[in-house]
Amino acid sequence: MKIRVLGAAAGGGFPQWNCNHPNSRRAREHDPAAKQRTQSSIALSQDGKDWFLFNASPDLRQQIQDNVVLHPQQDLRHSPIKGAVLINADVDHAAGLLNLRESQPLRLYATQRVLDVLAANTIFNVLNPKFVTREAMTLDTALELKKPDGSSMGLKIIPFAVPGKVALWLEDASKGDNFGSVDEDTIALEVEDMESGAKFFYMPACARLTDELAERISGTDLIFFDGTLWVDDEMIREGVGVKTGQRMGHMSVSGSEGTMASLQDLDIKRKIFIHINTTNPILLDDSEERKIVEEAGWEVSYDGMEIEL
Amino acid sequence: MKIRVLGAAAGGGFPQWNCNHPNSRRAREHDPAAKQRTQSSIALSQDGKDWFLFNASPDLRQQIQDNVVLHPQQDLRHSPIKGAVLINADVDHAAGLLNLRESQPLRLYATQRVLDVLAANTIFNVLNPKFVTREAMTLDTALELKKPDGSSMGLKIIPFAVPGKVALWLEDASKGDNFGSVDEDTIALEVEDMESGAKFFYMPACARLTDELAERISGTDLIFFDGTLWVDDEMIREGVGVKTGQRMGHMSVSGSEGTMASLQDLDIKRKIFIHINTTNPILLDDSEERKIVEEAGWEVSYDGMEIEL
Repeated sequence: MKIRVLGAAAGGGFPQWNCNHPNSRRAREHDPAAKQRTQSSIALSQDGKDWFLFNASPDLRQQIQDNVVLHPQQDLRHSPIKGAVLINADVDHAAGLLNLRESQPLRLYATQRVLDVLAANTIFNVLNPKFVTREAMTLDTALELKKPDGSSMGLKIIPFAVPGKVALWLEDASKGDNFGSVDEDTIALEVEDMESGAKFFYMPACARLTDELAERISGTDLIFFDGTLWVDDEMIREGVGVKTGQRMGHMSVSGSEGTMASLQDLDIKRKIFIHINTTNPILLDDSEERKIVEEAGWEVSYDGMEIEL
Repeated sequence: MKIRVLGAAAGGGFPQWNCNHPNSRRAREHDPAAKQRTQSSIALSQDGKDWFLFNASPDLRQQIQDNVVLHPQQDLRHSPIKGAVLINADVDHAAGLLNLRESQPLRLYATQRVLDVLAANTIFNVLNPKFVTREAMTLDTALELKKPDGSSMGLKIIPFAVPGKVALWLEDASKGDNFGSVDEDTIALEVEDMESGAKFFYMPACARLTDELAERISGTDLIFFDGTLWVDDEMIREGVGVKTGQRMGHMSVSGSEGTMASLQDLDIKRKIFIHINTTNPILLDDSEERKIVEEAGWEVSYDGMEIEL
């Protein structure tokens, strides 16, 4: 199974359009130690020929251009992209669908809750239903990814709920502390190569590592994990926001309750941070924090990162 | 007044994600005579400091990165972009709004019909109404563009209807030949620098040059005009589509009823094609068709093109 990181940054990307924080500034000025990153998404293939997207970021047109494996290969209209799995309806995970128009056959998987959001937003009708099928996935139920022609991608996924919250633009303050979030709002994916049996987890958002979750991911080959913030009050400290990581549905990388600490005793071969916010110093190759995560056995993903599993 | 072309290509950009036409292939392979172009949008400034977007293309994040004048200049959160004018609800003209999140004050102008579409698509709520005001513009009524703080941009626009059709994803086949299109669906903008009095027209879509329209644009300093197709049946001939230009609401560049012929006797100082489809050979610096349009006194716009008026 081949995995390609299309975008490693959190919503807004790195740099973020209206952010003048020193990190964004370094990225904008092409500082080689502050590599630019687009918004979080990965592409996946069993055979290296046909690919599926996990999330469709607003930067998708640029991401396709930057990754030769996603270029059309034959005839006049073609794409190696056979479909997409959306883990939620965040703008940075769903808006990229609007790039996939022009009558290209695709298969789209999401929870019913996310499909309802797409249906209610008629702008997504630009994906002509004659060519693009939308299929509901059920939590905790294995699903074989299929191409538009019905043949198998050779990949199986199990979507499951993780602690988190509903997309910002769908928050309902009248519904209490969790803004109307339900189980289906933050999900992760367990992925299996049906030929080799290789497995990995894709968890770009996670608010807390429960015991159940720790047990589930223990023993896996690879995990992509929520790397949004270094510390919980980072956006407040840096003066660029008023929300904590917890409020946004993300656990932080550092700290005694953080990701490094929570996962350090689990048996996981390869651990990679993805969905990294502009303010997180692990984005910088020359930061102290980057050194710390690497010493703790973590990698920091970047656009174009290739993994063979 | 300063004008910056952010994107010169039609919907899908150049190259288009799933297009394997020789033109797209040359662009994708970075052939210097087939310069890549993002989706159509221009930015406008009276003082060179504060800018307004005309249309917000899905490529906006990349366009901001590629144009230093649009980078944040001060504090931790800032943008020289003060607002946007949408001429319709096409995905390639409206979806870029989704990039302008993160609590940045902006002022958005569109016809009531387009505002209704945005309101009905709640994903646009990601533009927090606390920070982003939406204002209706009325056809044939002059409007002074204002910054979010209420001060003037020093620019005046007059939106007016041109022959065309409703956005593809809003078409209603039950409403007959014009798919339910109304006057507000295809508009153009007349723009005036309130200090110098300089004027230009922005018309990225136009299905027919009526006598009234010809009279209106006669005598102007500059026009950006619909350069979608070279000939009306181009997409069919090239095997990449089933629709004519007329069906899509665009007149073609060549031919006796085409743009070059229709505008050749009008008194217009500078004529520039914008919104150019991947199949249009004028995109290629070394094409015969490029030579023809240049000999007819036209320019072909490109991303980053700067104009001072």
